[in-house]
Amino acid sequence: MKVALAQINPTVADISGNARKILEYIAKAQKLKVDVVVFPELAICGYPPEDLVLKKHFVAANIKAIDALAKKIHGMVAIIGFVDSDAAGKIYNAAAIIAEGKLQDVYYKQELPNYGVFDEKRYFSVGNNPGVLTIKGIKIGINICEDIWIDGAIYQAQAKAGVKLLINISSSPYQVGKIQLREQLLKKRAKETKIPVVYVNAVGGQDELVFDGGSMGMDANGNLLARAKQFEEQLLMVDLKSADEINPLLDETEEIYKALVLGTRDYVLKNGFKKIALGLSGGIDSALVACIAVDALGPENVTAISMPSQFNSKATRSDAKVLAKNLGIDFKEIPIKKIFDHYLKTLSKVFRGLAPNNTEENIQARIRGNILMALSNKFGWLILTTGNKSEMAVGYCTLYGDMSGGFAVIKDIFKTKVYELCRFRNSFSGNKLIPKSILLRAPSAELRPNQTDEQSLGSYDDLDKILIAYIEEHASSAEIIAQGLDPKTVARTLRLVDLNEYKRRQAPPGVKISSRAFGKDWRLPITNKYKE
Amino acid sequence: MKVALAQINPTVADISGNARKILEYIAKAQKLKVDVVVFPELAICGYPPEDLVLKKHFVAANIKAIDALAKKIHGMVAIIGFVDSDAAGKIYNAAAIIAEGKLQDVYYKQELPNYGVFDEKRYFSVGNNPGVLTIKGIKIGINICEDIWIDGAIYQAQAKAGVKLLINISSSPYQVGKIQLREQLLKKRAKETKIPVVYVNAVGGQDELVFDGGSMGMDANGNLLARAKQFEEQLLMVDLKSADEINPLLDETEEIYKALVLGTRDYVLKNGFKKIALGLSGGIDSALVACIAVDALGPENVTAISMPSQFNSKATRSDAKVLAKNLGIDFKEIPIKKIFDHYLKTLSKVFRGLAPNNTEENIQARIRGNILMALSNKFGWLILTTGNKSEMAVGYCTLYGDMSGGFAVIKDIFKTKVYELCRFRNSFSGNKLIPKSILLRAPSAELRPNQTDEQSLGSYDDLDKILIAYIEEHASSAEIIAQGLDPKTVARTLRLVDLNEYKRRQAPPGVKISSRAFGKDWRLPITNKYKE
Repeated sequence: MKVALAQINPTVADISGNARKILEYIAKAQKLKVDVVVFPELAICGYPPEDLVLKKHFVAANIKAIDALAKKIHGMVAIIGFVDSDAAGKIYNAAAIIAEGKLQDVYYKQELPNYGVFDEKRYFSVGNNPGVLTIKGIKIGINICEDIWIDGAIYQAQAKAGVKLLINISSSPYQVGKIQLREQLLKKRAKETKIPVVYVNAVGGQDELVFDGGSMGMDANGNLLARAKQFEEQLLMVDLKSADEINPLLDETEEIYKALVLGTRDYVLKNGFKKIALGLSGGIDSALVACIAVDALGPENVTAISMPSQFNSKATRSDAKVLAKNLGIDFKEIPIKKIFDHYLKTLSKVFRGLAPNNTEENIQARIRGNILMALSNKFGWLILTTGNKSEMAVGYCTLYGDMSGGFAVIKDIFKTKVYELCRFRNSFSGNKLIPKSILLRAPSAELRPNQTDEQSLGSYDDLDKILIAYIEEHASSAEIIAQGLDPKTVARTLRLVDLNEYKRRQAPPGVKISSRAFGKDWRLPITNKYKE
Repeated sequence: MKVALAQINPTVADISGNARKILEYIAKAQKLKVDVVVFPELAICGYPPEDLVLKKHFVAANIKAIDALAKKIHGMVAIIGFVDSDAAGKIYNAAAIIAEGKLQDVYYKQELPNYGVFDEKRYFSVGNNPGVLTIKGIKIGINICEDIWIDGAIYQAQAKAGVKLLINISSSPYQVGKIQLREQLLKKRAKETKIPVVYVNAVGGQDELVFDGGSMGMDANGNLLARAKQFEEQLLMVDLKSADEINPLLDETEEIYKALVLGTRDYVLKNGFKKIALGLSGGIDSALVACIAVDALGPENVTAISMPSQFNSKATRSDAKVLAKNLGIDFKEIPIKKIFDHYLKTLSKVFRGLAPNNTEENIQARIRGNILMALSNKFGWLILTTGNKSEMAVGYCTLYGDMSGGFAVIKDIFKTKVYELCRFRNSFSGNKLIPKSILLRAPSAELRPNQTDEQSLGSYDDLDKILIAYIEEHASSAEIIAQGLDPKTVARTLRLVDLNEYKRRQAPPGVKISSRAFGKDWRLPITNKYKE
């Protein structure tokens, strides 16, 4: 049996566009004379459609699209994810089984994830049909994403029913280490059931999520037969008899970098933008975002803006310029000192007798935000923000200032990882892309004289350790201190994380790469008296 | 049997503070010699604790608090909502049944709401214990919130088990018409089971939610025996033999107004602020927010800032001043023209040859945002934003401009309702609080000469009809047009709603009063190609 895994990049709610793409892949599969072509979970409407599925007419439109597609599919079986509804108006995360120009059967997902970024129990009812079909006399079991993750779920009943192949359709978001988990899982299921398993994943960015592809096939002994590329569309052939195309796994740093590039590109393009801009300070964070922007959209579509005040050193200003030149992007310098002076003048009466503090620092950051947004409004550029996860966690950033923009590319990347990613990107350019001085200089917000981040935050090495434990591992302060970290620093850091929830709530979305990003998988109250 | 319903205002994660409050109410109940005192759902940790319950130490702390409370409770039965965990680490939305200084039993919620603002299936496992206890030889059934809303749920099994009283503990958020629904439901359940029902609700604000109280008791025939006040803490006595204190229901406008006041007060105070400020433009929206702020926090804690440019009329500037005087609040005028001129000068080179457009309008709004935030930073004031639901829906507001602030008081109030609420508030002050000219003038953003909102948006009457249908009733464009609305206006309005999701995603929280607010019950993708 020849199976084609159509690892496509659907766009949420672009039902006609997704249907066109599915037809293109059907045509490719027909040329290759496959028996079955398999598309990802909810391929026709994109994943996750969120509250769009509460619109009856949206669900109706996606069903109509499946019916229209079915008429065009002949000479093979196609399995396509969609949202189905029953007579009672309940809706299901469904797989359409199409052959001979007709919808032959549907399977409804049984295990609905409702944790992390997932809200499937908000929308879908639990299915209970067997998901077994026969193609060319061979029994096959169909299931959807979570159905194969839960021990003893429907895949086991399908195995007992004597299927000779398990097909799982997924839209599984990227996070570090996830593709390895998927591979281990599929290996385990194949061995457990003694049945080959094929797994198709979507690819592409959708708001904060990136689907990373990496579709696979396993033989009945759990040996890898085929693996698609990560982060790219592909029609992967799986001839179940022998090993086929096996693309190597990316190493972790490259994987993260590619996730950021794809997430950024798709957010920009799927939202109808072509060009982007960002504030380029000469610091490490904006350097990384500039590289990602160029790799996502091409240098001709990226503008870097330097907005120096009296507190920006010549060195950082010059580094920003050099980096822009190295990247081949447009560079504009717009000084903010005069505007800043006029704010101070305007506020001098009301601030009389009060010492300067972070207020004046934030005014500068907000002037920059205003200028970037003015450029966005005038030229139609989407603004990328450049804050990292360490900053977002402790609120070391200015709301409506450096947090202003449409997409927060590296909001899930800790500061220590920002350096790794810069070094990784630089290594592809003979270390000549990002100036060495950017990599070596102590990080500073440059909002007052001689400021450095680590004066305020302590060492980033310690900070990131505390934050990983607190955010991603749900550790208590006692557990973090037990790791050998300074109790005062731990207490202060945790307090800052909790207190700054209001800032994160108003932050733009950005690419999730960790097990717990500041997005749909982080749902903390703002009003929150807890201190551990 | 004498039952006391302790309609209290817990604070999320303030476990020790909530425990203290519970003990105060226990002491009051003891004086009144009640048999049972009943506290709301999750009273010990506050509702909703969201992802805090993913911390094992948080759950442990709330269980410890219940155990400590139990030791202090004698001479009556207390029923208190908390989060329990079992040996397997599963957690439950639970009711502690405490008597004689001991935790006697627990009941676990069975029906977990996972729609609208609710995510209970994200956190809790489904309970399966009977919830039947005996007090003074009388069998009683305990259930939690949704358990009594679902036909045939546990309350029915409890009735069949022969209980003589049903007790439901809830934390049910306010929305227009909800208290009437609750009363109808309890009446129905009493009649259906022929058993008296008592219902305790929480009161108070928690981020976007307001719990409105209105706890009640019904006799076995569905006659109202007692009803607590709305929006206030109270210990309500229900002597199940005869009618007791029945507070009248507020009319809809007053109810909404009080929800906004309580939601604002609790957001400010529970987050540790004392004073607030807002931009007072002389328009209707900021007039309403100023009244709410004063009613929530007292005039001595409110500062109004007028930030005129060359486009603000003398009339609106003077109206702002008069209103501030009428309210007895501090008033500061900080003109923005010079700062605006310097932005234009700074940007003149990069904007050369391009006509002024909304870019220049947004710059002004963002200067005002920057000034308000500078005052916030310098003086520790929380900023209230003044945008209404009609604006938030179509994006007729400036991100990082007038959207800057900690709490968006009227973000769930349509423009047409803003007028009603202003007239309502004015009627209590001999119509002398809000100047008549504010109520009569055509609304304008005053960001360019002779601008009015309705030039850009069409009539607010039509706009609000379209928005209510689209947002709150999930209507399609075809269905809205069928209501007699102009097809072009409908198409343009729906497109604006969809396109402006990115702004709403970065908006501060505000009080939910409708069936679907722009908060946790509005989960739409930003990247979204749907157009109906």
